[in-house]
Amino acid sequence: MMKLAALLIAASFAGSIAAQQPNRASAPPVSPEIQADRHVTFRLLAPKASAISVTGEFMTGEKPMQKDDKGLWSVTVGPLEPEIYNYNFTIDGVKTIDPGNPNVKSGSTPSTIASILEIRGEGHAFYDGQPATPHGEIRTHWYPSKSIGSLRRLTVYTPPGYDANAKTRYPVLYLFHGANADEVAWTRLGHVNLILDNLLAAGKIKPFVVVMPFGYGVPPGSGPGGESNALFARDLLEDVIPYVQAGYRVNTTRDQRAIAGLSMGGGQSLSIGLSHPELFSQVAGFSAALRPADFDKTFAAAVANPQETNHKLRLLWFGCGSDDSLFPAAQSFDAFLSKNKITHTFRQSDGAHTWMVWRRYLAELTPLLFR
Amino acid sequence: MMKLAALLIAASFAGSIAAQQPNRASAPPVSPEIQADRHVTFRLLAPKASAISVTGEFMTGEKPMQKDDKGLWSVTVGPLEPEIYNYNFTIDGVKTIDPGNPNVKSGSTPSTIASILEIRGEGHAFYDGQPATPHGEIRTHWYPSKSIGSLRRLTVYTPPGYDANAKTRYPVLYLFHGANADEVAWTRLGHVNLILDNLLAAGKIKPFVVVMPFGYGVPPGSGPGGESNALFARDLLEDVIPYVQAGYRVNTTRDQRAIAGLSMGGGQSLSIGLSHPELFSQVAGFSAALRPADFDKTFAAAVANPQETNHKLRLLWFGCGSDDSLFPAAQSFDAFLSKNKITHTFRQSDGAHTWMVWRRYLAELTPLLFR
Repeated sequence: MMKLAALLIAASFAGSIAAQQPNRASAPPVSPEIQADRHVTFRLLAPKASAISVTGEFMTGEKPMQKDDKGLWSVTVGPLEPEIYNYNFTIDGVKTIDPGNPNVKSGSTPSTIASILEIRGEGHAFYDGQPATPHGEIRTHWYPSKSIGSLRRLTVYTPPGYDANAKTRYPVLYLFHGANADEVAWTRLGHVNLILDNLLAAGKIKPFVVVMPFGYGVPPGSGPGGESNALFARDLLEDVIPYVQAGYRVNTTRDQRAIAGLSMGGGQSLSIGLSHPELFSQVAGFSAALRPADFDKTFAAAVANPQETNHKLRLLWFGCGSDDSLFPAAQSFDAFLSKNKITHTFRQSDGAHTWMVWRRYLAELTPLLFR
Repeated sequence: MMKLAALLIAASFAGSIAAQQPNRASAPPVSPEIQADRHVTFRLLAPKASAISVTGEFMTGEKPMQKDDKGLWSVTVGPLEPEIYNYNFTIDGVKTIDPGNPNVKSGSTPSTIASILEIRGEGHAFYDGQPATPHGEIRTHWYPSKSIGSLRRLTVYTPPGYDANAKTRYPVLYLFHGANADEVAWTRLGHVNLILDNLLAAGKIKPFVVVMPFGYGVPPGSGPGGESNALFARDLLEDVIPYVQAGYRVNTTRDQRAIAGLSMGGGQSLSIGLSHPELFSQVAGFSAALRPADFDKTFAAAVANPQETNHKLRLLWFGCGSDDSLFPAAQSFDAFLSKNKITHTFRQSDGAHTWMVWRRYLAELTPLLFR
């Protein structure tokens, strides 16, 4: 993955077609440039701009760039810990990407657009692809959703060996993205396949299938979240699960079915999962979007008979970072479940509302599933 | 696909998490806004900017945006023909995306970064997904390339029914992207799966598998194109094809194997395809990056014995748009092949070096394959 990442991050181009384009402008300045000591220099040639700054998950606040006499702006930060960070440039008041970096994060709304900076450490990170490790596949489906009335995309991870083991039925995790994102977020930003490939190679998880649907029932911003979530739940239960069970060798017992999600998707996984014990035995939320005022209503089914809920739930796990604006809601959920005598694990961690946290939660949660 | 596209293009967000973030800024202005008459308004709130313009595949040159007294910039273009266009904003001299549009085009170098504008017509376009049509899958593999010495990604299209027809062996098309792009370009921008799904449903093609590797042998810009192309060819022949033939039910005879590509990938498909008649019976290039000075050397094998080449080649097809800077090279290639008595089809079309042309070429070429 190191070389693949280098390929994808490579910041200038002088390929074979350039010979056909003699008028091609000279290569833009390299940005971001990652030094061996993990300092990072951001650059932008912008003689006409009057202020450029950088914001990013590697620091708090914004850092102004300095302009030289040729109009080349730059700033150096670091040294940065090995990690995958999002960052943005703000050019004369407009928040946008680093135009010099091909590694762009996008999603279902513009607020998620950012550039991606990957800082590598000495060895392999838990989210890195490794050439010598067996790798699963990501399959993308276009399926007609009767619930939504349109064609939608669905992303599915199958573990290494899935095709070869034609008689094996696999457990299945339904895994949801957050607001502003889409059905490729868990692979593109979450590295779900690489994390699970690595955990499998280390013997820390059993092989299972992961299903990642698109989490909006209505177009983002076109209606209230409740309506979107209700339609999404219908799509999941009436379209996605039957579609997956018809096309994949997944185990269809509740014992072998888990549900998890992050942020908006964490609200969805907890509410759908705890309302459908007949379908899900293992339920998790990462930095879940929860509204304490709705707990009694949303989780009425689960708290009506705590003894039965505890008997049926093999796992109820939720995590939140202490710097996340949703942390108080997670604390309230912890108190709500305790008050109602529902067995659960509340994982309080460092961190904010970021993929850095969610990649780690995935690696912490999945060894607990399907045991 | 219409509703899916609408979901992906939706320009503002007010989902369930917003309730947790009372300090969230008000929604940004909608951009792009597509009117019913196919005029399009681009907007950007940028009180501190002094000049903003739009460039795009729907027009020549650039169009300045106008600023109102609140710092809201806007410009309206059109009416635009139904199509999928790339466009950019230039903000105080810096070419970047439309920050209001989540639909971002990226690739392996920064020069390819753009926003995507999809204008819909009355009915379904040939590249639209349709709910009632059977759909194939896109599978993404992470494979260890011994040739390149790293883990690389590979994208594969399997036609509808592939999984259900466990005894069928399918023909296979190896299909390459252009410079600055990557192994997701043909699905993300080329709509290869949707185009083939539609052609299949219309009975115009036979079902076949499409294999889309990453086309750089060295990181873009890190070495000469020739070195990159040579390493890519090794990866294709020694890693990708064996990997595909081990994992997919593809026919392994030359009769059932085709090769095609666009731009840099067109140069690759023509040079590799015509140099390996033992592997490929059908060869195509779209807006191919060809260097007339190299024809004698690159295509030496094919012209050495025209009679045998014509006997073995079931199809040699290449197309180029008359507004493409590579058009003269395509004309030279046509003359070179004619001079050497190699049977071929030179498709001269309107258009420039754009995905608008390449999507159409794909729909023209594929009905000619595997007949």
